[in-house]
Amino acid sequence: MSEIQPSVSYSFTMRLYIENKPGMLVKVLNVIAEHKGDPGAVDVVRVEGRYKVRDLTVSARDEKHSRAIVEEVKKIDGIKVHNVSDRVFLLHLGGKIRIENKVPVNTRDALSMAYTPGVGRVCEAIAEEKDKAHTLTIKQNSVAVVSDGSAVLGLGNIGPEAAMPVMEGKAMLFKEFADVDAYPICLDTQEVDEIVNAVTWMAPGFGGINLEDISAPRCFEIEKQLKEILDIPVFHDDQHGTAVVTLAATINALKVVGKNLSDLRIVIVGAGAAGVAITRILLEAGAEEILCCDRNGIINRNDLSDRNASKKWIAENTNPENSSGSLMDAATGADLLIGVSGPGIVPRKAIEEMAEDPIVFALANPVPEIRPEEINTIARIIATGRSDYPNQINNVLAFPGLFRGALDARSKDINESMKLAAAHSIANCIDENDLGEEYIVPSVFNKQVVRNVARAVEEAAYESGAAKRKKVEGADEL
Amino acid sequence: MSEIQPSVSYSFTMRLYIENKPGMLVKVLNVIAEHKGDPGAVDVVRVEGRYKVRDLTVSARDEKHSRAIVEEVKKIDGIKVHNVSDRVFLLHLGGKIRIENKVPVNTRDALSMAYTPGVGRVCEAIAEEKDKAHTLTIKQNSVAVVSDGSAVLGLGNIGPEAAMPVMEGKAMLFKEFADVDAYPICLDTQEVDEIVNAVTWMAPGFGGINLEDISAPRCFEIEKQLKEILDIPVFHDDQHGTAVVTLAATINALKVVGKNLSDLRIVIVGAGAAGVAITRILLEAGAEEILCCDRNGIINRNDLSDRNASKKWIAENTNPENSSGSLMDAATGADLLIGVSGPGIVPRKAIEEMAEDPIVFALANPVPEIRPEEINTIARIIATGRSDYPNQINNVLAFPGLFRGALDARSKDINESMKLAAAHSIANCIDENDLGEEYIVPSVFNKQVVRNVARAVEEAAYESGAAKRKKVEGADEL
Repeated sequence: MSEIQPSVSYSFTMRLYIENKPGMLVKVLNVIAEHKGDPGAVDVVRVEGRYKVRDLTVSARDEKHSRAIVEEVKKIDGIKVHNVSDRVFLLHLGGKIRIENKVPVNTRDALSMAYTPGVGRVCEAIAEEKDKAHTLTIKQNSVAVVSDGSAVLGLGNIGPEAAMPVMEGKAMLFKEFADVDAYPICLDTQEVDEIVNAVTWMAPGFGGINLEDISAPRCFEIEKQLKEILDIPVFHDDQHGTAVVTLAATINALKVVGKNLSDLRIVIVGAGAAGVAITRILLEAGAEEILCCDRNGIINRNDLSDRNASKKWIAENTNPENSSGSLMDAATGADLLIGVSGPGIVPRKAIEEMAEDPIVFALANPVPEIRPEEINTIARIIATGRSDYPNQINNVLAFPGLFRGALDARSKDINESMKLAAAHSIANCIDENDLGEEYIVPSVFNKQVVRNVARAVEEAAYESGAAKRKKVEGADEL
Repeated sequence: MSEIQPSVSYSFTMRLYIENKPGMLVKVLNVIAEHKGDPGAVDVVRVEGRYKVRDLTVSARDEKHSRAIVEEVKKIDGIKVHNVSDRVFLLHLGGKIRIENKVPVNTRDALSMAYTPGVGRVCEAIAEEKDKAHTLTIKQNSVAVVSDGSAVLGLGNIGPEAAMPVMEGKAMLFKEFADVDAYPICLDTQEVDEIVNAVTWMAPGFGGINLEDISAPRCFEIEKQLKEILDIPVFHDDQHGTAVVTLAATINALKVVGKNLSDLRIVIVGAGAAGVAITRILLEAGAEEILCCDRNGIINRNDLSDRNASKKWIAENTNPENSSGSLMDAATGADLLIGVSGPGIVPRKAIEEMAEDPIVFALANPVPEIRPEEINTIARIIATGRSDYPNQINNVLAFPGLFRGALDARSKDINESMKLAAAHSIANCIDENDLGEEYIVPSVFNKQVVRNVARAVEEAAYESGAAKRKKVEGADEL
């Protein structure tokens, strides 16, 4: 990260009219290279008089960089820039998902089976036995991706309309990775009770609810209430997806350094949604000494009066010796430091004071709590949320398989044992012989991950009693 | 309708083990024919020892008839019925629609454009200007098909889970006929305020709301409130879809008999959701004398004390001479009788008393107010809701084109002028030279209908000021 590299996230296509003489394209490419753009595909569109019309795609560092490159290209003699299309915006035109019919309804017979009058018998069967909705409707495979737009990526409270592209993207990941039919629902309310009501009322057609980008502490209360009310899984991915993958990374990191979770001193920097969920799953998995830090330092039980419910929970369930102090105090002697806060929050000095073989997960995105370059001579293992470093902690390793397994078991919940099973399953996707400091987390494109997680989660759903599906179903269910 | 015919709505496939000797299949087919089943495809699955394994598909009249046919086949020597699958239920296994990604997200580059970090810029663009959601998200083309399961087909209040197959079917029709991405949302509440809230909160991601199978009089209030709150079209199809197609049929029927709408005496039998909407659109289109009948006879202004809001509206807006009396009194001298009530409600005698060239629309489904066979010597023109008679009044002629046109215009409403435009457009799909007593409504499979309706509705949206899209949009919108 010595310098930000050009990325397809900031790529654009210029339509250029290039005078038809030798060396012109090379001129363009040189100008782009000089200004540190990264040229991609070059297509000839047509020849028009004395011009060749070409589409040239370029990746840049950011929008300012894009504009600068275009300006420089415009200056070249014999080149006209006809128009510039932003590739990311082009991809989003009209949205990123669509509905498809599983069978065509273009004949009278098809209509009378899929719609009236044939459909009436199917309705009656479900009216008699509500659970048949899991077999005879999309409920079997459908998840609502629900957000109120209050904490979208790093952008904050941008509202429901502006949250849609993320929720559509999430639906795409559900489809691509786990063949789950997810639909984005962005709510025009940020009241806890109203969100709980909205989701409760719309739930009958869904097999699961994925809460997304809802700000803390409301997200805790919303998830808690919905889990009590609904008999389908409710899962706040920002909390539990991150927690599951973090535990997986922890499991593998400990194999590399040869330590045990129960002996570890763990520091968690950041007490938001992800911090709480990571704390919870690490305790569940056997961790004993966790210190959580917020901006005031180590959270302890000395003064709980102005703490919200989740910070009280942290105070009561971590910090066994009830220590107080700064992040530096917490980090001193720690084996594992997990950052889920903001850019540059953790000083190099904190890592220097850690115990032998420091493990550092700096998960703030896009800019981590501390840059791996600053600590790669001190920390033994480093993980981030970014794809351009080794060991990316990415939710997409967890949520597709978690929901796949939960839906397959017709689970009424995604409970702690299902999450633990997912974490172990992700960790086990890397053979112990292949494990190393730079390989504790499998690739998001490793297809084995979803399959393994799904089967492990399904199994855990049966074992924990959350599964509503009978394990062996006859063919005669109809 | 002298006898109900076998239908694919009641078709099943038997897997038969048939002894491998000549004449066995014919025996089976004979037995089916004797018992009035309608055999379809016969597939050889495999040969197993001395048996041929065959899948034989048969249409029956109803479930009892299906079972009877299977029992008879079982009696044949040398035939074993291995299993029986209900084709309609097979079609519904796992639901009828799915989500598809418009582009794959199976590479790092695709991920960073469709999801993080690239998606962030698209979110910011919408946060700055909310209307960009129409261009950059699925809102452009998406409709929520919303029901509370309170009045599903003829089945009544069967609840949200059991309503799902109908709403999925509706979504299929949206896709098949108008390439609209519709998603079924079945609500677990039947309170007016709660339904209004649920739809209001979930609206940001949708370009339109199609209310469906919500019982009267709640449907009126829900639609009214939502139309006031939301800036996207809200359309209760059971009311307005039926009304639009009924007006189209009326327009063409009047061309055939050579009468004018303003001179007509019209009787509407049934004052539910559809009755009110038909009354409203006929008045809008220029009708002057409408008499609405409920089970107590002609609705008038003599005693409004125990009438609900919609019956009061009828009383105040129809029946210019404030007559009272029975359905028979109303029908006497009427030119057009429209039934939107229940099976067999209208006696033959009522039709006999109508004016010259009686037009009868008996729309109760599946059993009309009066069977066409009973009146085809008296009525000049007959229409029903069924596909097995001429002149089927089917909502599918209206709602796909209405929403297509409204979405294309980015309309904030589906208003009266858009509905009138739709009705005229449907009527005009039949060339005047082709019009006749048995052809006043185009076929649901006439592809011209959706196209014409969509363009007429879009135009009406612009003319009435409901369209939010600018008529000519530059390519530089991004």
